[in-house]
Amino acid sequence: MKNWNIKMNMKFGKLAVALALLALAWIPGAQAQQDDAEMIRRIYDLALTEGKAYDWLSHLTNQIGGRLSGSVQAQQAVDYTRKEMEALGLDRVWLQPVMVPKWVRGTPEFAYIESTPGHTNNVPICALGGSVATPPAGIKAPVVEVRSFEELADLGREGVAGKIVFFNRPMDPTLIHTFQAYGGSVNQRHGGAAEAARYGAVGVIVRSMNLRLDDHPHTGSMSYGDLPADQQIPAAAISTNGAELLSTTLKLNPDIQFYFKQNCRQMEEVLSYNVIGEIKGSEHPEEYMVVGGHLDSWDLGSGAHDDGAGCVQSMEVLRLLVKAGYKPRHTLRAVMFMNEENGLRGGTKYAEEAQKNRETHVFALESDSGGFTPRGFTFDCTDAAFSKISQWEPLFMPYLDLQLSRGGGGADIGPLKPQGLILAGMRPDSQRYFDYHHAETDTFDAVNRRELELGAAAMTSLIYLADKTGFDGLTGTQGR
Amino acid sequence: MKNWNIKMNMKFGKLAVALALLALAWIPGAQAQQDDAEMIRRIYDLALTEGKAYDWLSHLTNQIGGRLSGSVQAQQAVDYTRKEMEALGLDRVWLQPVMVPKWVRGTPEFAYIESTPGHTNNVPICALGGSVATPPAGIKAPVVEVRSFEELADLGREGVAGKIVFFNRPMDPTLIHTFQAYGGSVNQRHGGAAEAARYGAVGVIVRSMNLRLDDHPHTGSMSYGDLPADQQIPAAAISTNGAELLSTTLKLNPDIQFYFKQNCRQMEEVLSYNVIGEIKGSEHPEEYMVVGGHLDSWDLGSGAHDDGAGCVQSMEVLRLLVKAGYKPRHTLRAVMFMNEENGLRGGTKYAEEAQKNRETHVFALESDSGGFTPRGFTFDCTDAAFSKISQWEPLFMPYLDLQLSRGGGGADIGPLKPQGLILAGMRPDSQRYFDYHHAETDTFDAVNRRELELGAAAMTSLIYLADKTGFDGLTGTQGR
Repeated sequence: MKNWNIKMNMKFGKLAVALALLALAWIPGAQAQQDDAEMIRRIYDLALTEGKAYDWLSHLTNQIGGRLSGSVQAQQAVDYTRKEMEALGLDRVWLQPVMVPKWVRGTPEFAYIESTPGHTNNVPICALGGSVATPPAGIKAPVVEVRSFEELADLGREGVAGKIVFFNRPMDPTLIHTFQAYGGSVNQRHGGAAEAARYGAVGVIVRSMNLRLDDHPHTGSMSYGDLPADQQIPAAAISTNGAELLSTTLKLNPDIQFYFKQNCRQMEEVLSYNVIGEIKGSEHPEEYMVVGGHLDSWDLGSGAHDDGAGCVQSMEVLRLLVKAGYKPRHTLRAVMFMNEENGLRGGTKYAEEAQKNRETHVFALESDSGGFTPRGFTFDCTDAAFSKISQWEPLFMPYLDLQLSRGGGGADIGPLKPQGLILAGMRPDSQRYFDYHHAETDTFDAVNRRELELGAAAMTSLIYLADKTGFDGLTGTQGR
Repeated sequence: MKNWNIKMNMKFGKLAVALALLALAWIPGAQAQQDDAEMIRRIYDLALTEGKAYDWLSHLTNQIGGRLSGSVQAQQAVDYTRKEMEALGLDRVWLQPVMVPKWVRGTPEFAYIESTPGHTNNVPICALGGSVATPPAGIKAPVVEVRSFEELADLGREGVAGKIVFFNRPMDPTLIHTFQAYGGSVNQRHGGAAEAARYGAVGVIVRSMNLRLDDHPHTGSMSYGDLPADQQIPAAAISTNGAELLSTTLKLNPDIQFYFKQNCRQMEEVLSYNVIGEIKGSEHPEEYMVVGGHLDSWDLGSGAHDDGAGCVQSMEVLRLLVKAGYKPRHTLRAVMFMNEENGLRGGTKYAEEAQKNRETHVFALESDSGGFTPRGFTFDCTDAAFSKISQWEPLFMPYLDLQLSRGGGGADIGPLKPQGLILAGMRPDSQRYFDYHHAETDTFDAVNRRELELGAAAMTSLIYLADKTGFDGLTGTQGR
């Protein structure tokens, strides 16, 4: 398109009207709204002209890479983010020790479909996080395809024993919000092996949590629940194209065999850290507001969207507030949580320490849905707090009209919930997220600089508003 | 992130409330709203489960490629889209002849910065569309950098004559809507050569219209206005990284020389076509509603976002309506306009023919802002029409909460405006658009399938609503 006369007056018109109405209806607050509008403009200008998030993300992904809990890369990421936050002139930067599980993938997995003896098709698989290994020679067995735990139960032991169970329920493409589609399918990955083992299956293959047809298997956490160790069976994800091939081959010949081999294993727990940067509050230093993401990632790809983006955006929040000359009233922390993916130990430890040290947390924001164009924030809080928060919406109109809605916060900040604080979640555009999620495709080039920066600016603006406004008497565990 | 219990209740709660309110406030219309909601759900389901837009786009881009007006590829695209529309079971598919300019790039351009004699740095450039060639041996001259036509005027003939003018005003990254940033910079590309020639410049180099720093020059149309042929000077775009290098080099040494060579040229006009598919209206066959994109593209890249996306989405509108079993009341047309990029001949011809054949057009929608996640539509229409259109907004809440706002339609449908019809423009997320726009990066892999399909579904829903509602007495040239 070459149309350079395009009118972009829509949002600005709406903002002008909104601000005018606010000014008329609420004269005492008009100046405050004007100040807020100016501060937010400054934050966005800084983020978009001299942002650091993208450079930080380049280092985390291109120089360090995948950062699975307990890995050398996870430790490098701890050291790197500490060093970078130390350079920001914050009041305090420190490491919070936490023991984390260490699961290692081992040598690359290998799998094939054997249509008839000697005729094989290799298919891309990867072990699910937390899975046991196959025997050293691998497993070869007939396959039974199911779409749900109910189908599995209907087959019963006679239909399943001695076989590999292939869970092949795709993410539902008609769900507009892709996280809903994920929520509707991920039980196969998380609990499929435990379910199948109860019926005597020898292994589990799960269709990757991916809305695209491609050749990349997507890993992710699984759990055997209370299944004794000697009954645990290996579980792997197969790429969506591989799943289609396997399903079609099974339809043509239900007697095919599937072979796979993986030598992943769970090691001893190791010491790791949450990385925390803090600016002391000028008026309420004893009240804490947190912004965070998780520093660990899966080992495939380099954890760019999940959740390098959330980490660098969280560091950027503090940096931008400092750059903008803002002195926070409450104590603000950026927290790089360790081990969200396969244990949530960092989030749990942070909440434990906050409890132990009697740190009152009033607000926590997590970014863990990718570094895409921001669409809004969701809030898990009291009605009274949400009613106050809703009043900020006009301020976000010029910045892609961000929506402030009720909804969840994030996994890492969840353990703080008993404190009754306000939990907030960053909600970017979700359409591309599962193209990359937990796969080797989650790399730096999948992140667009402006989208990442707009997210950081939105988060900074939200933290600014939360800090400036405060929530006296509006937090709590009732009415939410 | 692994949080599969995430609550996505926000939009659905809002829709339920909106629909309930509508039902209470407007009982006679409640059933109609319910019917509309069901039809739109059907449209989205079809688009997301058995869409054709992505496959069509793959052919247009991967099998055909860049489709500059007058090229073999443009003709292949005409043949292909005609054939595909013929297979849809429409009432009529035909080609509308139109003469188009034919500009050819020739052999690849070549440029370098010469810091001192013998010390050169190659930089990536491409000729601007419509530019004349350099002399066969190229041009080597000193460079003067400016940021605006005002700076150029201040330099005057003594500062410019015999030099290459380097227009280096970047797109403004602080503008949230990237089309605004484009609008603020593109006069350098479009009119820079004509301005510089008036002061005796020998050539023009323009910083690419790109918000990213990278190595891809972005072409696009330019015009010499009424400048006589013997005063026309060659104009090229330089990649953003190249522009930074050139600017820095100039700061270190204002006496450097710049060399470039291009042998593009304007050929004789050739015959080409708009491609039109039509479904006859059941109640008002004499009233036309149009949905379109432009079939031509620049020759760099393969015109995936600009505007292969808009074309395949427009074809998909008719296909989805047929699939959904909808019988349009008005005559609906999908139009693949030819020559938007460097002449607008197709759009002009279409409007001329409509006028000549006394075809009353009441509604036209263009998609020419990329195949990204849809954010809304803009409307150029009477207040009365917009007031009716605004009532549809609740219907789009479950589908990413599309916003219906006042604003422009599109270049190709612009010539229809004197008819007083409603002009609508598709407005997707704009953050990544200028990463690809008019550059070799505008390829199939830059388009996400779901984003493209969501756009097609949104367009289909809008056309459905426009057709079903009608606009008796609401069109016109007054009050808009």
